[in-house]
Amino acid sequence: MKYCRFLHDGQIKYGMIDVDHVVELTESYIKKTAAPTHRMHLLEEVTLLAPVEPLQIVEIGLNYVDHAKELDLPLPKEPMMFMVSPSAVTGPHEAIVLAHPEHRIDFEAELVIVIGKKAHRVSKANALDYVFGYTVGLDISDRVLQNGDRQYTRAKSYSTYKPLGPVVETNINPNKVSIQLRVNGELKQDGTTRNLVHPIEKIIETVTEVMTLYPGDIIFTGSPAGVGPIQKGDKLETTIEGIGTLHNFVVEREH
Amino acid sequence: MKYCRFLHDGQIKYGMIDVDHVVELTESYIKKTAAPTHRMHLLEEVTLLAPVEPLQIVEIGLNYVDHAKELDLPLPKEPMMFMVSPSAVTGPHEAIVLAHPEHRIDFEAELVIVIGKKAHRVSKANALDYVFGYTVGLDISDRVLQNGDRQYTRAKSYSTYKPLGPVVETNINPNKVSIQLRVNGELKQDGTTRNLVHPIEKIIETVTEVMTLYPGDIIFTGSPAGVGPIQKGDKLETTIEGIGTLHNFVVEREH
Repeated sequence: MKYCRFLHDGQIKYGMIDVDHVVELTESYIKKTAAPTHRMHLLEEVTLLAPVEPLQIVEIGLNYVDHAKELDLPLPKEPMMFMVSPSAVTGPHEAIVLAHPEHRIDFEAELVIVIGKKAHRVSKANALDYVFGYTVGLDISDRVLQNGDRQYTRAKSYSTYKPLGPVVETNINPNKVSIQLRVNGELKQDGTTRNLVHPIEKIIETVTEVMTLYPGDIIFTGSPAGVGPIQKGDKLETTIEGIGTLHNFVVEREH
Repeated sequence: MKYCRFLHDGQIKYGMIDVDHVVELTESYIKKTAAPTHRMHLLEEVTLLAPVEPLQIVEIGLNYVDHAKELDLPLPKEPMMFMVSPSAVTGPHEAIVLAHPEHRIDFEAELVIVIGKKAHRVSKANALDYVFGYTVGLDISDRVLQNGDRQYTRAKSYSTYKPLGPVVETNINPNKVSIQLRVNGELKQDGTTRNLVHPIEKIIETVTEVMTLYPGDIIFTGSPAGVGPIQKGDKLETTIEGIGTLHNFVVEREH
């Protein structure tokens, strides 16, 4: 099932998608009490927003062998985690606003886990019970700040640097989906989560051994090889098999 | 003025402190609509909790010259930021539960900024207008994980690794207060925010150039020299001039 958050007549709503229609829900699909209403809209007549509003965003670094190689960095033995600000989230059709266009700023296509229930010290065996579903994420990264700071939070937390969407899909095998990213129509990343160093279950176990995750919190699971720079005017299409495609475009911040 | 969050008759309340009394407020002091009620309690009869429940915790690393020296790390030219999980917060009289007691785990006493209004791209000149007040923070850090991961989030995000309190004080000069930490009565850290590499205003400018902070979000501003290890049974007293003292004790996690 595909769930979404959307704008209709100036109001933010949650919905579930039925082929080319959106069935409005009484409240966020993340809540157990959410129920369908009688209101339906044509999918093409609503504006899809980032499907979740996380309180916490955890990212896993260097989680594909090929990507670690292209950055010339050693492979972490355990999932390497850091956090970025939820204020960086934007929608599936929105602009990516480069804060420092003079820096090298890279795209990274990632499968994103959406947590469904409070999760603390969850074992690998039970990890998927705590997942609501999965969405597509773009992890925009300022390489100058990332290399200068060593800590990754600043480089990846600028407003609009975390496009999410277009939907949250509950029914995929997260360890067996393809990920593609195109810049101006040209295929730049063509990977699969089959090549994750640490699979989804291990990521959830490691993150929740430390912190408590809440419904709607998200985990970026890392990006396959092929990451590269973006600049003003670029059009990015980020697709994950079974979920959908983000369509973002690049502009520069007005100072 | 000193504000607090406390437990009374099994209920969580917010209050303002009047010498030895707590005046109950209608809601969190962070909200503009908060007002005093007629209910008062003796301060000694309530249990003080962590005074804020942040959505975001930003930390500034290596922000005292003497501390960077003792870690043998170069001084960052700009405030170096990272984020930790709000699920690590605990109260001013609570246990610090060591998740991996076999690791070296250090205390770090820090002045903590409590944000009062939505802050994005705030200049140094206006930065203090966005501050509600200041509290005392302990930044407990697992050095084995911190050095192994290179990213600091995991090492510092374990449950109970961020004691806060006892109150939020609105009326101090944050760049001119002393900070002391004692372990089992012995003075280990004896610093002052006069020695901050980057003062409070610069920290707020740099963090909000990137992300949006919301009322109740907090920034740990770094720790002076003298950080050192803790172990089961230790009693920690962390004091900042004009705010108050945290009284925490160390136990080990039951596996």
